[in-house]
Amino acid sequence: MKKSNKIRVGITQGDINGIGYEVILKMLEDTRMAELCDIIIYGSAKIAAFYRKAAELPQVNLTQIDTPDEARDGSYSIINVVGEDVKVEPGVSTEAAGQAAFAALERATADLRAGEIDVLVTAPINKHNIQSDAFRFPGHTEYLESSLADEENPKAMMIMASDNIRVALVTTHVPLKDVPQLITREAVEASILALSKSLERDFAISSPRIAVLALNPHAGENGLLGSEEADAITPAIEEARRRKVLCFGPYPADGFWGSEAYTHFDGVLAMYHDQGLAPFKALAMNEGVNFTAGLPFARTSPDHGTGYDIAGKGQADPESMRQAVYLAIDVFRNRARHDEAHRNPLRKQYFEKGNDNVVLDLTKED
Amino acid sequence: MKKSNKIRVGITQGDINGIGYEVILKMLEDTRMAELCDIIIYGSAKIAAFYRKAAELPQVNLTQIDTPDEARDGSYSIINVVGEDVKVEPGVSTEAAGQAAFAALERATADLRAGEIDVLVTAPINKHNIQSDAFRFPGHTEYLESSLADEENPKAMMIMASDNIRVALVTTHVPLKDVPQLITREAVEASILALSKSLERDFAISSPRIAVLALNPHAGENGLLGSEEADAITPAIEEARRRKVLCFGPYPADGFWGSEAYTHFDGVLAMYHDQGLAPFKALAMNEGVNFTAGLPFARTSPDHGTGYDIAGKGQADPESMRQAVYLAIDVFRNRARHDEAHRNPLRKQYFEKGNDNVVLDLTKED
Repeated sequence: MKKSNKIRVGITQGDINGIGYEVILKMLEDTRMAELCDIIIYGSAKIAAFYRKAAELPQVNLTQIDTPDEARDGSYSIINVVGEDVKVEPGVSTEAAGQAAFAALERATADLRAGEIDVLVTAPINKHNIQSDAFRFPGHTEYLESSLADEENPKAMMIMASDNIRVALVTTHVPLKDVPQLITREAVEASILALSKSLERDFAISSPRIAVLALNPHAGENGLLGSEEADAITPAIEEARRRKVLCFGPYPADGFWGSEAYTHFDGVLAMYHDQGLAPFKALAMNEGVNFTAGLPFARTSPDHGTGYDIAGKGQADPESMRQAVYLAIDVFRNRARHDEAHRNPLRKQYFEKGNDNVVLDLTKED
Repeated sequence: MKKSNKIRVGITQGDINGIGYEVILKMLEDTRMAELCDIIIYGSAKIAAFYRKAAELPQVNLTQIDTPDEARDGSYSIINVVGEDVKVEPGVSTEAAGQAAFAALERATADLRAGEIDVLVTAPINKHNIQSDAFRFPGHTEYLESSLADEENPKAMMIMASDNIRVALVTTHVPLKDVPQLITREAVEASILALSKSLERDFAISSPRIAVLALNPHAGENGLLGSEEADAITPAIEEARRRKVLCFGPYPADGFWGSEAYTHFDGVLAMYHDQGLAPFKALAMNEGVNFTAGLPFARTSPDHGTGYDIAGKGQADPESMRQAVYLAIDVFRNRARHDEAHRNPLRKQYFEKGNDNVVLDLTKED
């Protein structure tokens, strides 16, 4: 029996030798979080206690539970997913840390799919030590796509979001040399449409305006510095505009970020990882959130990594983790409102006007 | 006969349909510039008058001269390099604008080489309309390298500089698909050494600390996302460190720019155009300056483009142009001081110490 009607936020522990626990516990210090949602951590009460002591954090009460159903309103819960004997070594990449990170992710994803939790927030993993037979992905986004995608929501899209900037990527975790061949008209157009859909449904922005960045320096300088703009990106923009998406570009990335042009758009589509994320992180400074759009469930994470260099030292800033939880809740609510509003659309009504011969035919389904 | 002993700053007009004249004239409004240096504009008094009127700028006195020698202390000068009949069309890319931009650049470069001016500041050109049989280059930097390089200073390097950030690039104006193959150990190492040399001689920073960025997302994630870090960048860093250059990395670009890590370094070496310039421009906002290091003469330019969209409207911000002039002057002075200080180095003195058998041999030249 569900004991609370709040939104249930599942949080994975991430890499247990990183700053995951520290940012989670620091965030939970502010007990207003418990008024907003039910927090369920997938990890280990023992490791949480370890980091509380190591980083000299104030006491945060975590109730140990076995299933999300047991979470009580107004308290923070933790589900143990690793054994008592797991070794914590702050700042070191270990196999055990990868296994623990995966155990939390696997259980939380299963609970998400089963509707036991409403949204997922993930602490950072080390993409190297988490690799195993069960996890052969470059990152969270790709794993979640393979675990959660369904027919209606087949493809994940990574969106980095701050207060006033939302950046999506056409390509994500691929070597730079593979990027140009992945920038096809189809890929760019699909990304524009996916970003537009997410801005509407997840961020509650109607008729969002999207800026599309160029692949090459100076947007290819009319072909002098590359042809992908003319061959793929511009045709994709034109096609998306025919489908009524308000998209513009391709813009040279350096000028776009340097001239604050991003303030004129609801979303930015970058062609590859560093082109979108380096300027985004430079500007969003500690407040960025990584949001996985396009899947049946909302998942967010802070935009920082495991932070091995400061692990266990009490120096980590919980702001991005806090924003990740806020955004996950916002997206969950926006989706519910959007779906409610679009559940019973009015049938399109055609009236005879002037010489227009299309007339309303009520005998047919729309 | 030279009429002034100030540093002579040559400024090219750039694309005559862009914001070049506007930022130059706005900068010169503050007459303290005339106390700092002699300003010699390569352009057209007529076009300057046109923009003064179009953008409703206050009167700035420009003395028409034929050679830089005629420049008088305390006044601004202009050398006409285009005919009276050239057509100005603000915001439009025309062949005439490209020809005018090239005429100014060609004359200013010749004067620089002849020692008639001390430093060069260039207003933005349109890299498309300036192309001709005499100019087949992707930009200023490459043209200047071909015009000015000598045996001691064979290679130009583009450095973007603001108050607290200096970014150099291993590759500049090339299509993105050509970047990975250009990231060789030799190229990265040469860039590290060139940046280090420029930071010492041009920016007067002794023992500069240099951060080297990775090519691939997450610095290749230990080979999962690309191999150039292990194959080229890391070996280059190690070799440069053996040569006593304080360089570090390779750092993943997004985390580097997002964590303010750049504040810990005197210079940053990015692997390609957008990786360095998009975050730099996002952070340096209107104050960035493009500096061409590695050549016998110092050249700077504002970090913005021709600004066709706001040309002739009086909206352009002259701050970057002003900083470009300041930096050119600083570099000229720093180089003079550096060269003076290193003119007669003390000979290395070897003393017999303990079991060390190296002894001072005064009979040989060092």
